[in-house]
Amino acid sequence: MAVEPEDVIQHSSSEFARFLKNVRGHALEMGGLAEQHVESAIQAFLEGDQKLAKKISRADFKVNALEVKIDEECSEFLALQHPVAMDLRTVIAVIKATTDLERVGDEAEKIARLTANLDYQAVRKRHLRAVKHIGRHVLAMLHKALDAFARLDTDLALEVLKEDLEVDEEYEAGMRQMITFMMEDPHTIRLVLEVLWCAKALERIGDHAANICEHVLYQVIGKDLRHVSIEQVERELADAQI
Amino acid sequence: MAVEPEDVIQHSSSEFARFLKNVRGHALEMGGLAEQHVESAIQAFLEGDQKLAKKISRADFKVNALEVKIDEECSEFLALQHPVAMDLRTVIAVIKATTDLERVGDEAEKIARLTANLDYQAVRKRHLRAVKHIGRHVLAMLHKALDAFARLDTDLALEVLKEDLEVDEEYEAGMRQMITFMMEDPHTIRLVLEVLWCAKALERIGDHAANICEHVLYQVIGKDLRHVSIEQVERELADAQI
Repeated sequence: MAVEPEDVIQHSSSEFARFLKNVRGHALEMGGLAEQHVESAIQAFLEGDQKLAKKISRADFKVNALEVKIDEECSEFLALQHPVAMDLRTVIAVIKATTDLERVGDEAEKIARLTANLDYQAVRKRHLRAVKHIGRHVLAMLHKALDAFARLDTDLALEVLKEDLEVDEEYEAGMRQMITFMMEDPHTIRLVLEVLWCAKALERIGDHAANICEHVLYQVIGKDLRHVSIEQVERELADAQI
Repeated sequence: MAVEPEDVIQHSSSEFARFLKNVRGHALEMGGLAEQHVESAIQAFLEGDQKLAKKISRADFKVNALEVKIDEECSEFLALQHPVAMDLRTVIAVIKATTDLERVGDEAEKIARLTANLDYQAVRKRHLRAVKHIGRHVLAMLHKALDAFARLDTDLALEVLKEDLEVDEEYEAGMRQMITFMMEDPHTIRLVLEVLWCAKALERIGDHAANICEHVLYQVIGKDLRHVSIEQVERELADAQI
């Protein structure tokens, strides 16, 4: 169920409210930028647009800079104010989510860097096809994770956690396909490995999207559900009656 | 230069001192356990000890449990007390370091899982040799990173950051070697890829060791040096006169 963030976050003061709204806004801005980089990196990879790839590769510093800025804001807030309960969990969730978003940016940069150096004369459609599906799925997951973070939507967060398991399976299937390509034509091993690294980077972006959703659950129900099964997450959500 | 943690961490109260000492102790305990898992996973991989590999694979939950426990301790401390300056940075550094240590545990578990399923009848000495060197280097790096964390030793932290660049090069060289093995004998592609995943996991453990050292630098000099060059880290340390 989606809840109004303003209803859930009970602030000790209007100053708290303002800070939390601002810092969550900055985290979402960072998320939007990271998402945009992932989208462009996938597009560059699939279309062989090496100019776009180089542009994305050079732009990763912007995501990093936002992480540093948000971390500073959170540290300053923790030092000057004294948030408790949901307010404190919000700050901790923001710090943790930005760590994941920074790594999402890193993975987008990795895809862009690989794309910029890929020999597109040798790339075949079947190579790209194996990655296309994972790319589309992971991008949708990341979008949902940011939505779940923005709206503190635990249902959406749970959905993303389930999808992460699907993406892991899609990655395994993609990898098996690529091993077949390599065995069929050993001259393409290096090339196919580079395509495989792109698929791996996408799979990791899915992991980070799932992590962000775990931070959302922590923020809303106050429980650390990082190392438990999906079934247990469902039980905890039911118990919390959210 | 190594500094006495007790001199650097200036506490607002003896209760703070006790908490910070305890939680840093727990983080180091978690670090010791993660290090032990990495060491055993490397040993299992190199010696083909699949029984040991399964044991390590099953033990990862212990590292995860410590992360959850330490995070809870930190949240509770932030909620009940009001740490500022170095005290606050210590808590933030502990939260961030445990995230990295949890992932170190994950990578050790991955190596153990790969080892448990590896076809050692087909593994050749040259496959293992390519990983052995990285393994030894990364294990030393992780040990140094935990030392730097325990003693708040910025010199040692800087050393680890430099070594991370070396490990990245060693990994690239190892990967080139493995591509050669695959091209020479395409029947071994699947096997060699699994060896390559082990090398990749080790390289990522090196990244996490470097991250831990960045958290040490943040804690001691109060600056976020995650996205800057080694030269700039050196200048910042000189400026801070530590």
